Amino acid sequence: MFVIKLGGSVITDKATECCFKQEIMDRLAAELSQAKQDVILIHGAGSFGHILAKKYNLNDGFKRKNQLEGFARTQAMVQQLNTLVLASLHTHDLPAISIPPHAVLSLSNHKPAKVDYSVVKRYLDLGFMPVCFGDVALDKKLGFSICSGDLLVQLLAAEFKPERVIFVLDEDGLFSANPKTDKNATFIEKATIKDLQKLSTRMNTHADVTKGMEGKLSTIRQVASQGIDTVLLNGNVHNRLFDTLKGKKVKYTLVYGDRA
Amino acid sequence: MFVIKLGGSVITDKATECCFKQEIMDRLAAELSQAKQDVILIHGAGSFGHILAKKYNLNDGFKRKNQLEGFARTQAMVQQLNTLVLASLHTHDLPAISIPPHAVLSLSNHKPAKVDYSVVKRYLDLGFMPVCFGDVALDKKLGFSICSGDLLVQLLAAEFKPERVIFVLDEDGLFSANPKTDKNATFIEKATIKDLQKLSTRMNTHADVTKGMEGKLSTIRQVASQGIDTVLLNGNVHNRLFDTLKGKKVKYTLVYGDRA
Repeated sequence: MFVIKLGGSVITDKATECCFKQEIMDRLAAELSQAKQDVILIHGAGSFGHILAKKYNLNDGFKRKNQLEGFARTQAMVQQLNTLVLASLHTHDLPAISIPPHAVLSLSNHKPAKVDYSVVKRYLDLGFMPVCFGDVALDKKLGFSICSGDLLVQLLAAEFKPERVIFVLDEDGLFSANPKTDKNATFIEKATIKDLQKLSTRMNTHADVTKGMEGKLSTIRQVASQGIDTVLLNGNVHNRLFDTLKGKKVKYTLVYGDRA
Repeated sequence: MFVIKLGGSVITDKATECCFKQEIMDRLAAELSQAKQDVILIHGAGSFGHILAKKYNLNDGFKRKNQLEGFARTQAMVQQLNTLVLASLHTHDLPAISIPPHAVLSLSNHKPAKVDYSVVKRYLDLGFMPVCFGDVALDKKLGFSICSGDLLVQLLAAEFKPERVIFVLDEDGLFSANPKTDKNATFIEKATIKDLQKLSTRMNTHADVTKGMEGKLSTIRQVASQGIDTVLLNGNVHNRLFDTLKGKKVKYTLVYGDRA
């Protein structure tokens, strides 16, 4: 079984509000369908969530009454994105079922406080593909906050111990620096947790590193500490996901689970 | 606080797959908004759910593998309806949050087995309007089955003890027989549980009574047994919902809660 995260920047245009990349989603759905593997799928909220969530400072918690509107509208917009993802998966004969974090889990000061894994397990056991996503969420300390797709990867990997965690990104994998802005950035084919710790320190000295990658590194460290391997691959390149699911070596970064 | 059910035949055209009655929904959202009351909203699945659910016999439980596709597609279609309902509510400044039954509760041979009310309570306490809907659901005995909007009314009324339960229908309320086919049908302005028991027996002798109304009568009996009054009113008539929420007497059926 695989836990797969489709990055928000792969399936949406992050710069344009509510812009869904239908063609890329359809190709990834086809690759998932052809690979015939048990999968828990997670997708980012991309431009359906981040823009409004930032405007209303939803991640800082409930402080002003007008945030209710922002929270409710953000929930509806990520639900709209999720409906588009489900439709694409169903078109490709995948029995995908939505599991919306704002309704099934709660946080406490951004940390997971109560998660009902049984619903995910029961859908898996029946033969469905559970689909989770970056969402708004209840927060016992803050009233509400944000549950990121990366946090979901961490929780679901720890609970379901997949064969591998796969991050589908809009770049080839991990680099020594941000490849979009630093021409000296080198591609990392394989890494251990120790390598990642060094990498993290180096990346933080780059001002232009995306927050997204920092969060991902922390998630990967958590996943690796459970002994699970993580693959980061480019979702824009045809069949990288399919080949990886079939055990074929293509260009990707492999982070070894800690087996010590 | 009110528990309000918007009937599937009010907000969708039940004869045409996925046909949403946008104008009626918008007017009802405006009435809800102007009334400024605490509300738990439930909506039927209408033609977004019933047609596929029937085609795949989802309510009989999991018997054939191709039902997985039917279940998944039905879930996505009622989610699509729910997204339309949310958008209308948000346009009218109501902080509506979706609580999808397929993810938060489970049944056992059609009866409620496990329901997490805490998520509904926490959204209410923060000032949101929780929105539930007729949906597919996990079923411990059958694998899966259907969770009707009427069952949700029953559960949420018993848990939250609203001032009143309100059914928004596409007719004026309860009649002694089916008003659409029997010209001798008389309108019932007020009734007790005892009156309903007689009515139920009489309605069952009519071959053309809708199943929808039979299920509703059973729900109303359950609600009444909790000591809660139920109002059934016509959602197609301007301001019947608003006036009722403001305590004004308009044309509706009132079923008294049992206070014995």
